[in-house]
Amino acid sequence: MNYSAVIYILGWIMDIEAVGMILPCIVALCYGEREGLGFLYVLIGCAIVGTIIILRKPKDMRFYLREGFVTTALSWIILSVLGALPFVLNEDIPNFNNALFETISGFTTTGATILSNPEGLSHASLFWRSFTHWIGGMGVLVFLLAILPMAGGSHMNLMKAESPGPSVGKLVPKVKDTAFDLYAIYFVMTMAEVVLLAFGGMNFFESLTISFGTAGTGGLSIWNDSIMSCTPYQQWVIGIFMVLFGVNFSFYFLIITGKIKQAFKYEEVRVYFVIIAVSVIVICINIYDRFSTIGETIRHAFFQVGSIITTTGYGTADFDAWPALSKTILVMLMFIGACAGSTGGGIKVSRIIVMAKTVKKEIISFLFPKSVKKIKIEDKVIGHETLRSINVYIMTYIFIFALSLLLISYENKDMTSNFTAIAATFNNIGPGLSRVGPTQNFTCYSTFSKYVFMFDMLAGRLELFPILLLFSPSVWKHKRKVV
Amino acid sequence: MNYSAVIYILGWIMDIEAVGMILPCIVALCYGEREGLGFLYVLIGCAIVGTIIILRKPKDMRFYLREGFVTTALSWIILSVLGALPFVLNEDIPNFNNALFETISGFTTTGATILSNPEGLSHASLFWRSFTHWIGGMGVLVFLLAILPMAGGSHMNLMKAESPGPSVGKLVPKVKDTAFDLYAIYFVMTMAEVVLLAFGGMNFFESLTISFGTAGTGGLSIWNDSIMSCTPYQQWVIGIFMVLFGVNFSFYFLIITGKIKQAFKYEEVRVYFVIIAVSVIVICINIYDRFSTIGETIRHAFFQVGSIITTTGYGTADFDAWPALSKTILVMLMFIGACAGSTGGGIKVSRIIVMAKTVKKEIISFLFPKSVKKIKIEDKVIGHETLRSINVYIMTYIFIFALSLLLISYENKDMTSNFTAIAATFNNIGPGLSRVGPTQNFTCYSTFSKYVFMFDMLAGRLELFPILLLFSPSVWKHKRKVV
Repeated sequence: MNYSAVIYILGWIMDIEAVGMILPCIVALCYGEREGLGFLYVLIGCAIVGTIIILRKPKDMRFYLREGFVTTALSWIILSVLGALPFVLNEDIPNFNNALFETISGFTTTGATILSNPEGLSHASLFWRSFTHWIGGMGVLVFLLAILPMAGGSHMNLMKAESPGPSVGKLVPKVKDTAFDLYAIYFVMTMAEVVLLAFGGMNFFESLTISFGTAGTGGLSIWNDSIMSCTPYQQWVIGIFMVLFGVNFSFYFLIITGKIKQAFKYEEVRVYFVIIAVSVIVICINIYDRFSTIGETIRHAFFQVGSIITTTGYGTADFDAWPALSKTILVMLMFIGACAGSTGGGIKVSRIIVMAKTVKKEIISFLFPKSVKKIKIEDKVIGHETLRSINVYIMTYIFIFALSLLLISYENKDMTSNFTAIAATFNNIGPGLSRVGPTQNFTCYSTFSKYVFMFDMLAGRLELFPILLLFSPSVWKHKRKVV
Repeated sequence: MNYSAVIYILGWIMDIEAVGMILPCIVALCYGEREGLGFLYVLIGCAIVGTIIILRKPKDMRFYLREGFVTTALSWIILSVLGALPFVLNEDIPNFNNALFETISGFTTTGATILSNPEGLSHASLFWRSFTHWIGGMGVLVFLLAILPMAGGSHMNLMKAESPGPSVGKLVPKVKDTAFDLYAIYFVMTMAEVVLLAFGGMNFFESLTISFGTAGTGGLSIWNDSIMSCTPYQQWVIGIFMVLFGVNFSFYFLIITGKIKQAFKYEEVRVYFVIIAVSVIVICINIYDRFSTIGETIRHAFFQVGSIITTTGYGTADFDAWPALSKTILVMLMFIGACAGSTGGGIKVSRIIVMAKTVKKEIISFLFPKSVKKIKIEDKVIGHETLRSINVYIMTYIFIFALSLLLISYENKDMTSNFTAIAATFNNIGPGLSRVGPTQNFTCYSTFSKYVFMFDMLAGRLELFPILLLFSPSVWKHKRKVV
């Protein structure tokens, strides 16, 4: 393990966090809130420690996969721990465990909350909560890679750990230019939503924070009732942008570079929209008697479907009170998740496509044993290695899910709450059903269970393995034994 | 498709069913029940039609995988449809859909029932219900193979479809001798349980039917309260035999052939017992305050764990009323299931072991990219083809599970009932939680949902693909196009 390189990167992470905290300080200044001091203290601390670390650049900056995974996991943990401190210092969330839960939920773009009254927070804290979504959505390490010079190949080993989705047709920013383009798309789309929401009557603070939560597919709201009290226009804007942020960013990249035809042939994006359309139609039929107009029915069905499949977690209606069919569809969407290469979580549409094609291929091979059909996605043959990695991902996913469910079930809560609480945190969604439904929050669970959720949120956001590796003793043992 | 060979086999199946129905007729004679007539009529019908079919042996008896799968699926469906008719004719279960549900539940060794008052059935019907478990446990086609001469290789194509578990260390009877040995073990163990139960105070009818349900890991009881009113001695006997019937029969085969040392090194069997032991201990701690003595607590914990992991489904206690941790453990055991090569259902312990080893190997490969460790079970390297088939199995399993859950959720029942109802039928267990808990039954679901459950029971028993293939149009299209 190249410890000095790992620590060097962590120093940069602290500096980035310090820079990020300038914004809530400014918000506090604007609103004249004393709570801004909490952010200022942490900002100064991070800046000093971080800068001391990065002053001494290690000679050997070679990064192997192991270092990449460990650095990614530690970066996110350090970001979250330091990001939670202001909440404790300014007493908006005095309990450190709760503050950490809220911050991890923020950075991992989950949107699960332990607050029953977010409106009671200071503007600075509300801003920071939403801003963590925006940072977490695209990933800090991608950002770091765009500004930091590193040895060849080392970029990839960091990228591999942080980027969502399998390496299928993914636009991983292999070079700085691509990373810059991705951030540009992300920034422009966020600003477009801010403008459209402001146009619809929101003030700048509201439209900015809500847009951060949409862009990162986070879902922490500045209001107690999520966004149920927003106007239909605002809800449509947010709903459409949620769905857009769940699209594979390669799609936008293709459009920008003029490959419109290729973009609209994008298999994952097409399946993603088909799933959304079918789900909305079925749910509309299932809940038609609950709302007064067809327009309202469609709006709520579309919003909830978009919110869940993109793993955002905003709500315009209490879907926990909807009929079982609608709830079952929404729970399944929790697992499907958004497109790979988007800001969303879950298993990802492309993995589901590959799984479905694997099953189809198997059935065909029973019928025609000599057929040698390869599995393709986006017109490319899926290699053995990618198939294997998807299989391993699914298996690891199942084991972590089962273990988490076991661990929290000692609390003796009902199975629906437990199951959907894990589903909602592990897939980075936010609300589940029953006790963790859209109108509820996660306070009802014990501190131990909250740490299980925190683990799941991080594991889900970082595609399982970086966080798992931390628990493997041999990661820490072999100093400098680079194989 | 070699239709004439398929129909020929189905003729044999009808004859076997006719022979099987002699027993309930005898039972009816002993108890002087008119309900025996229903079995007699169907027996005569089956015997005539079956014999007409098998009189003309087709010239070409070549069986390919496709024929094997289709024959297996059709055999089980025909067995069930014909096996359900006596219930309708003798008016014990007048509704055909319910009778079919009960019979499929019997043959697939599920043990889910639509009867709230099984004690109201005639002895003949009760006997037949339990006897279907015994037939279904080992499989009819294995039996047929032992008596029927077929072209080389054709045996395997039938076996492959019916035998439970992946082809890992499995003692598939490749030759008639092995099939005979398996049936001998099965028969002797069943008789041992009959004797021990009779010794404990049960009459011959009771000990025979309950032993059939144990041996096939079925779970349909002749009493309304499953076996809650049995004596502790009887419950221990049944509990221990359930666990024994969930062991891979290769284990017994090794013991009989004197390879004791090799038998006790059997990885799948060891893991199976470890899972049982750990589950029992945790559940005992979790429910210690519910029973008056430690002995009683252990007995109920052991019985329920044994009943669920072997997918039998007998009950000595209403575990739906147990705390969440115990229920969650039991639900997980539903999915794990028994050993491959046993009479039990579920995903099978050996598949779980391979999955766990796959995950472990992946983590090691992240740490030491150049390590080339192969996945082994029973000291044998798992080939690429087996790994692939396990992956495909898991994926297909997930898709069928999700689709089934969606289909039955239109009924607007709670998610715990729906989820565990699918889990209990798909894994061939019987009882689930909530509305389908150990003291409940499946009558609350609509006819449509019951057909979903029937599909799941058959798909679960036949390891998914045979039943799935029936829905593929190209199975039926290409007449004689043997590839």
